[in-house]
Amino acid sequence: MQIETPYLMFLGDVPDRLAAKTAYGIKDWRPEWCVGQLRLPGCAADLGIPDLTLAEAVQKGCRTMVIGVANAGGVLPEHWIAQVVAALDAGLDIASGLHARLGAVPAIAEAAERNGRQLHDVRHTAETFATGKGTKRPGRRLLSVGTDCSVGKKYTVLALEKGMRERGFDADFRATGQTGVFISGRGVAIDAVVADFISGAVEWIAPAAAPDHWDLLEGQGSLFHPSFAGVSLGLLHGAQADAFVVCHEPTRTTMRGVQHPLPTIQQVIDLTIQLGSLTNPDIRPVGIAVNTQDLEEGAARALLADLARTHDLPATDPVRFGVEGIVDRIVAEFPPAVTGASA
Amino acid sequence: MQIETPYLMFLGDVPDRLAAKTAYGIKDWRPEWCVGQLRLPGCAADLGIPDLTLAEAVQKGCRTMVIGVANAGGVLPEHWIAQVVAALDAGLDIASGLHARLGAVPAIAEAAERNGRQLHDVRHTAETFATGKGTKRPGRRLLSVGTDCSVGKKYTVLALEKGMRERGFDADFRATGQTGVFISGRGVAIDAVVADFISGAVEWIAPAAAPDHWDLLEGQGSLFHPSFAGVSLGLLHGAQADAFVVCHEPTRTTMRGVQHPLPTIQQVIDLTIQLGSLTNPDIRPVGIAVNTQDLEEGAARALLADLARTHDLPATDPVRFGVEGIVDRIVAEFPPAVTGASA
Repeated sequence: MQIETPYLMFLGDVPDRLAAKTAYGIKDWRPEWCVGQLRLPGCAADLGIPDLTLAEAVQKGCRTMVIGVANAGGVLPEHWIAQVVAALDAGLDIASGLHARLGAVPAIAEAAERNGRQLHDVRHTAETFATGKGTKRPGRRLLSVGTDCSVGKKYTVLALEKGMRERGFDADFRATGQTGVFISGRGVAIDAVVADFISGAVEWIAPAAAPDHWDLLEGQGSLFHPSFAGVSLGLLHGAQADAFVVCHEPTRTTMRGVQHPLPTIQQVIDLTIQLGSLTNPDIRPVGIAVNTQDLEEGAARALLADLARTHDLPATDPVRFGVEGIVDRIVAEFPPAVTGASA
Repeated sequence: MQIETPYLMFLGDVPDRLAAKTAYGIKDWRPEWCVGQLRLPGCAADLGIPDLTLAEAVQKGCRTMVIGVANAGGVLPEHWIAQVVAALDAGLDIASGLHARLGAVPAIAEAAERNGRQLHDVRHTAETFATGKGTKRPGRRLLSVGTDCSVGKKYTVLALEKGMRERGFDADFRATGQTGVFISGRGVAIDAVVADFISGAVEWIAPAAAPDHWDLLEGQGSLFHPSFAGVSLGLLHGAQADAFVVCHEPTRTTMRGVQHPLPTIQQVIDLTIQLGSLTNPDIRPVGIAVNTQDLEEGAARALLADLARTHDLPATDPVRFGVEGIVDRIVAEFPPAVTGASA
């Protein structure tokens, strides 16, 4: 699945900013793809980009209208359908992060057919995956792992993509969740993949590459999360990660959605190495990424310094303080074999 | 999904016994449900039960025709469709283990609708699962785990169901694969469940129960298998297993479908305890089950005695030598709290 860019961001009439979380994520990381937004009366979200009509969006070069919003139940409200049909008639593809399939709405399926346009349901996949093979493939891979869900695993690898490219690395973000798929224009939401094929899907998402190429894989869940550890393990095995960054949110007391306490960062490091060794015996940590948005700068810097000392790893908030230390560690641990990425 | 029993076993015109592996599994473990078979000209499989016409099957009380056969590609051959439609018209439900959905064939969907009959696609599920909660629930649970795929995990828990019931236990086999679903008439094939919901599906398959009730859960894959470890871990966490049996096939040299060596039984015990402790800190092994079919009886008994001594656990081939030792260990480790299961 390759979603054509740039995007017209459809926000519908969502009642708050949170319902447009995916759209904000796309805007944060791919502002150059977000040409404009289309909002219905009553919409409480605003990406701060121009409001465009469908005709204006097409005229400015938009290729796809992105439904990067959620509504209760994940369904497509009746009054959005006419907008989607009109967008197809205007010549745009549609990409949706809703649970409901676009093509299941007859009017939308007919309009796509009539106009020869693509419908992308990011939460579903038409791709058929093989089961994972576990055979070592060329290219370098880094995976973000976590003490919990929603601790910054996507933002960490997106920041690393930017930071590593600035330092001359050939590095690509690899999405495993719906927002990430919109941000990269490709990839597979792992929560659309049937259990037997998790590792195989990850092998497909991050395939064999040049020896010095880095795939930066968005992790999911946590090896310590009772709901999602299986997904995290399949991702780890499929990634055959050379390197990993541990992501953490310091104000969290129990794991998201359950009563379990958070593991320590050291426990995550140890278990990731232990289990990751099955498909890559050389796996090693290269940093700690902490979401410090609830801490003042002084407290954040003190926490990061303490974590760096304790674990002998660069520790940073990738969004707030950058990823330079982690990139330095990657350069030191994995000296380029062929061409030089600058240190 | 509850499949109505007893069954008429549809074998089609499969070219060999292996293509009817699921049907043989059902016949082995639920002979009382297998009233007869329906074979087309050229069929090379034979369950050794009466060949029946559809009318005879209905007259003998059959409720469901089971398509327990595979063909290349998992699709429903054109010339089977007429038989399926005729079975629906005769008043039978249909349950299929094929990848293709029965209802995707218009003639079959129409016949089911016309006759008010059920279509069960065991490899798919219409059930919506919650994500796993990891909260301890009442009732006892045993999970079969393995050094690899296809080492007897289903047969082990089926043998335990029989052996434990004979000893007065309230024990139920819980299927997680398609053959198991046919054998129990319910359950969910884990390979039909989307990755995020593995643990949640297992919590649904083996729900809260009376304190002395045992759910005997069919394991899948292996924590050491690079293709399927994520599935195995999700199963382990969802099962919240009190007890586990390690299943092993002693002639295997590499793991099925990949180049990885088999782990040792001790490695499987250690990792199962380590990772299973997340949702049940009291998890413990209660036996080793070895598929000894390629060994002579003397060699098999010697191997089992050696394994029992090394691991201080009962070791048996459940099919060849029974499960008495494992049931003894369960009685010793988990004395009934309420009513007495006999020792």
